[in-house]
Amino acid sequence: MDATKRIEQALTAAVADAEGPLCPPRLAAAIRYAVFPGGARIRPQLALAVAWACGDDAPDVADAAAVAIELLHCASLVHDDLPCFDNAPIRRGKPSVHKAFGERLAVLAGDALIVLAFETLARRVASRPERLAPLLLIVGGSVGMTSGIIAGQAWECEPRIELAEYHRAKTAALFAAATAAGAAAAGADPEAWRAFGERLGEAYQVADDIRDVAATAEDLGKPIGQDQAHDRPSAARELGVAGAMERLEALVAGAVAAIPSCPGAEDLRKLIRAEVLRLLPKELSRRVA
Amino acid sequence: MDATKRIEQALTAAVADAEGPLCPPRLAAAIRYAVFPGGARIRPQLALAVAWACGDDAPDVADAAAVAIELLHCASLVHDDLPCFDNAPIRRGKPSVHKAFGERLAVLAGDALIVLAFETLARRVASRPERLAPLLLIVGGSVGMTSGIIAGQAWECEPRIELAEYHRAKTAALFAAATAAGAAAAGADPEAWRAFGERLGEAYQVADDIRDVAATAEDLGKPIGQDQAHDRPSAARELGVAGAMERLEALVAGAVAAIPSCPGAEDLRKLIRAEVLRLLPKELSRRVA
Repeated sequence: MDATKRIEQALTAAVADAEGPLCPPRLAAAIRYAVFPGGARIRPQLALAVAWACGDDAPDVADAAAVAIELLHCASLVHDDLPCFDNAPIRRGKPSVHKAFGERLAVLAGDALIVLAFETLARRVASRPERLAPLLLIVGGSVGMTSGIIAGQAWECEPRIELAEYHRAKTAALFAAATAAGAAAAGADPEAWRAFGERLGEAYQVADDIRDVAATAEDLGKPIGQDQAHDRPSAARELGVAGAMERLEALVAGAVAAIPSCPGAEDLRKLIRAEVLRLLPKELSRRVA
Repeated sequence: MDATKRIEQALTAAVADAEGPLCPPRLAAAIRYAVFPGGARIRPQLALAVAWACGDDAPDVADAAAVAIELLHCASLVHDDLPCFDNAPIRRGKPSVHKAFGERLAVLAGDALIVLAFETLARRVASRPERLAPLLLIVGGSVGMTSGIIAGQAWECEPRIELAEYHRAKTAALFAAATAAGAAAAGADPEAWRAFGERLGEAYQVADDIRDVAATAEDLGKPIGQDQAHDRPSAARELGVAGAMERLEALVAGAVAAIPSCPGAEDLRKLIRAEVLRLLPKELSRRVA
């Protein structure tokens, strides 16, 4: 089965696990709305690609890890879009969750998605129970208060921002968790895979900065110019589009070089290069290709 | 060690686990502020009391379960107090988290506390790894979207409220999880302990309704009259204080009767009666005693 299908099926099953006849209907609707249809599903794709490169000896465990990471990503989007943060009206080409369901259900849907991520691991890592605790800690750390995405968002509330830490926490942490969890799910050493994910996350952040200045809102499915509007640090604002493109290429090269040697390494390298092109505004990706 | 000390030590250790030198300082402060000093810690007390009644063969596991439940309770208070929900200025006798740290850090602190609850289980259920997945599912279910406290809060956003489900989810679920998790942490059957917790949760909700109309704000550490102000269902509003007191007594009797037979059952019965008195406004508890 191809990875996209695996991810959508596993996400559908995870959400269905949590929904019961007793679930408040508008909350259930808000949660489905936040998860489906998704964006590029780049983090779970990455987790499955690494699990595959490591032998994928327990696909149910890899699916659970991929789902947990995507649910946490969806939760962070819902909460980041709230009026007190970005106050974003549009996400993935449709009204953001708080616009469509109200602020209260957006807070609750984000909370519920966090819970569901951990429940999914608890429920679906049954075939290799010894992998559960390590996976929980990898996934938890990637969103947590020290250097996860919650910490990344919290840096925006500090009087002095630690820029490197901000980027690492806000974006790279979840990518590093995707590669580490993909490896751990397949019984490989997660730490060996962390640098690859981290560099890829930095590259993704730069690509995102470039899109924020060089793409159209239609292309992006969300408003452009947000970094400037919220005065957020951005590689494209610092270096210009050309400079940011150079940095992006260096980061992708660094990420690819950090792939540990394994049977699937070559496939993984190809996948990464293709994915990065997909992230750039159409005009720029034509130029790079 | 007495239970209160155990709980504070375990909470302190759990928060310290998550804080690192890289943690954004205001986020760390908001999280500590949300957790310390606590209220009555009634849910973790209950978890430890049940674990104790069941033999407490793995105190580290019982501590982790108690901490996870209390952290989730603290998270729910922080998010319930937000402007879009109760907009509560005071909690536990001091400004609520969003009043003290701003709305953004309140959203993030709540999120981080949810993550920390699951991380604590993953980190500290090491001595009995086979108990980890069941504990995660008990704790996750108690806050989740179907019948946990998130569902309870979400019922307030529905056009038609399912009253029984609302109360069960909003309060009883976390009490039922406290007793079930206490039992599971000690290797006993969690399902046998669920009814006790659920009835106790219902009793606690009625006691809370009574306090909301019959206590002073000073006594309570938060504003009174909130159920009326937010037009929330309340036993005291429906039955009057005397009627609500009668219902409370019946519920406590039912809870005590639901304690499964075990070596520590008699101690547990005494503890419950003492705790319930503590929950009532001083004037009423003098009358009952």
